[in-house]
Amino acid sequence: MAVVLDVDSATDPRVDDFRDLKAADRRPDRPGGRGLVIAEGTVVVRRMLESPFRPHALLGVDKRCRELATDLADFDIPFYRAPAEVMAQVVGFHLNRGVLAVAHRPPARDFTDLLTGATTVAVLEGVNDHENLGAMFRNAAGLGVDAVLFGPGCADPLYRRSVRVSMGHALRVPFAPIPDWPDGVGVLRRRGFQVIALSPDPTAVPLAAAFTGPRVALLLGAEGPGLTEEAMAAADIRARIPMSAGTDSLNVATAAAMAFYERVRAS
Amino acid sequence: MAVVLDVDSATDPRVDDFRDLKAADRRPDRPGGRGLVIAEGTVVVRRMLESPFRPHALLGVDKRCRELATDLADFDIPFYRAPAEVMAQVVGFHLNRGVLAVAHRPPARDFTDLLTGATTVAVLEGVNDHENLGAMFRNAAGLGVDAVLFGPGCADPLYRRSVRVSMGHALRVPFAPIPDWPDGVGVLRRRGFQVIALSPDPTAVPLAAAFTGPRVALLLGAEGPGLTEEAMAAADIRARIPMSAGTDSLNVATAAAMAFYERVRAS
Repeated sequence: MAVVLDVDSATDPRVDDFRDLKAADRRPDRPGGRGLVIAEGTVVVRRMLESPFRPHALLGVDKRCRELATDLADFDIPFYRAPAEVMAQVVGFHLNRGVLAVAHRPPARDFTDLLTGATTVAVLEGVNDHENLGAMFRNAAGLGVDAVLFGPGCADPLYRRSVRVSMGHALRVPFAPIPDWPDGVGVLRRRGFQVIALSPDPTAVPLAAAFTGPRVALLLGAEGPGLTEEAMAAADIRARIPMSAGTDSLNVATAAAMAFYERVRAS
Repeated sequence: MAVVLDVDSATDPRVDDFRDLKAADRRPDRPGGRGLVIAEGTVVVRRMLESPFRPHALLGVDKRCRELATDLADFDIPFYRAPAEVMAQVVGFHLNRGVLAVAHRPPARDFTDLLTGATTVAVLEGVNDHENLGAMFRNAAGLGVDAVLFGPGCADPLYRRSVRVSMGHALRVPFAPIPDWPDGVGVLRRRGFQVIALSPDPTAVPLAAAFTGPRVALLLGAEGPGLTEEAMAAADIRARIPMSAGTDSLNVATAAAMAFYERVRAS
């Protein structure tokens, strides 16, 4: 069981990992920061407890401490219990969700390790919005995507907001950078992945007709700019979602969900 | 062309329609409020200008005024031009998007009028989150849904945040309440709509196998509680999205998008 330790003062150094979460230059949960991952709220904290990310401490109000007691039974870590006001002073803003857990960031994984046994992977380029990225991970988890691979220009999947919007699935769906871009996409092809680039181009193949093989890599760009020419050229085929004329493209996470759905719709 | 009128003081009564947008009890864009609809940002304002909602005034900074000059060519309405600080004082917060347009709310439409010529409609129950509702409208517009019908407990599609998240499509996709719930669903059936209730129940039919007729009404409940028993009983069939075990259900707007997508995927 986690050890409950009361924190009465916002200057208590034991809760430094949770300090000033909004001050961009001091964010502990950003790359180049203190190398930490923050889970926020009961649902996401629970998911962290079930994930490979082992939290080393929690900070929360008494109510959340009691709610999580069973989940924390096997964790020999401190739960810093604080009144809501003290917690707000530490964190730097009032946190409705009342509980945070913190874990260390692991080193980046080798993307080729994630391909073993994988049949569907998402490959992102320039998806630089934390909420879209979080939603993408939630959709990936829900629809059976095996891994998310990152080309350049993507947001941080372990940033607090990404993790929250993902409902904690950013902690569970494996991800890794593709260091050599877009050449690394060739590795996927050599491993037998059909590389399908999602595109709004009306001359692209309808999504429903694009899938031909047992292994698929779905290449997705950001809303607005979309994929670069170089990334597009690295794909085997371009696929489009049938869209109504005169509308904006769908949100990138929603478009991705439809491609993920195509992979499971017959199951 | 809109008439550009400079506003130098935040107390100027000409911009009262834009005042204190965040103060819940005084929100001009809520039902029971002043009966107004607020569009925010260049993209959404443009969409309002193309919609049946005819704005009667705009408030914005000089840069936005110039950006919208062409769009406003046929509108004989005032553009209240104000410095960003004055605008922030009027609105009650700093508005990054720099421009607002305001229109009057039209009376609610009769839902049976929206069925003529419609082949796909969404029917919502308890979708009480403005962002989810906005996302639903964006997806509806992108994927060719003809109308959105509201059972009880839904958020306001014309609330500023819904409109913004919808990218303005809440102003374009027709919507109406179904006053008699769930009996009104029977009207849809009598008009030849197959009523498909989306459900996470693993015994439901896979979404891909659920559609059998030319006219479809997709019945969607809120994330978490889902549809009520009564609404579920009013449907012809229950359909599920094939989901990975142990994950949360998808966001309701994303689940809806998949159902909408099924209607257009072969087109």
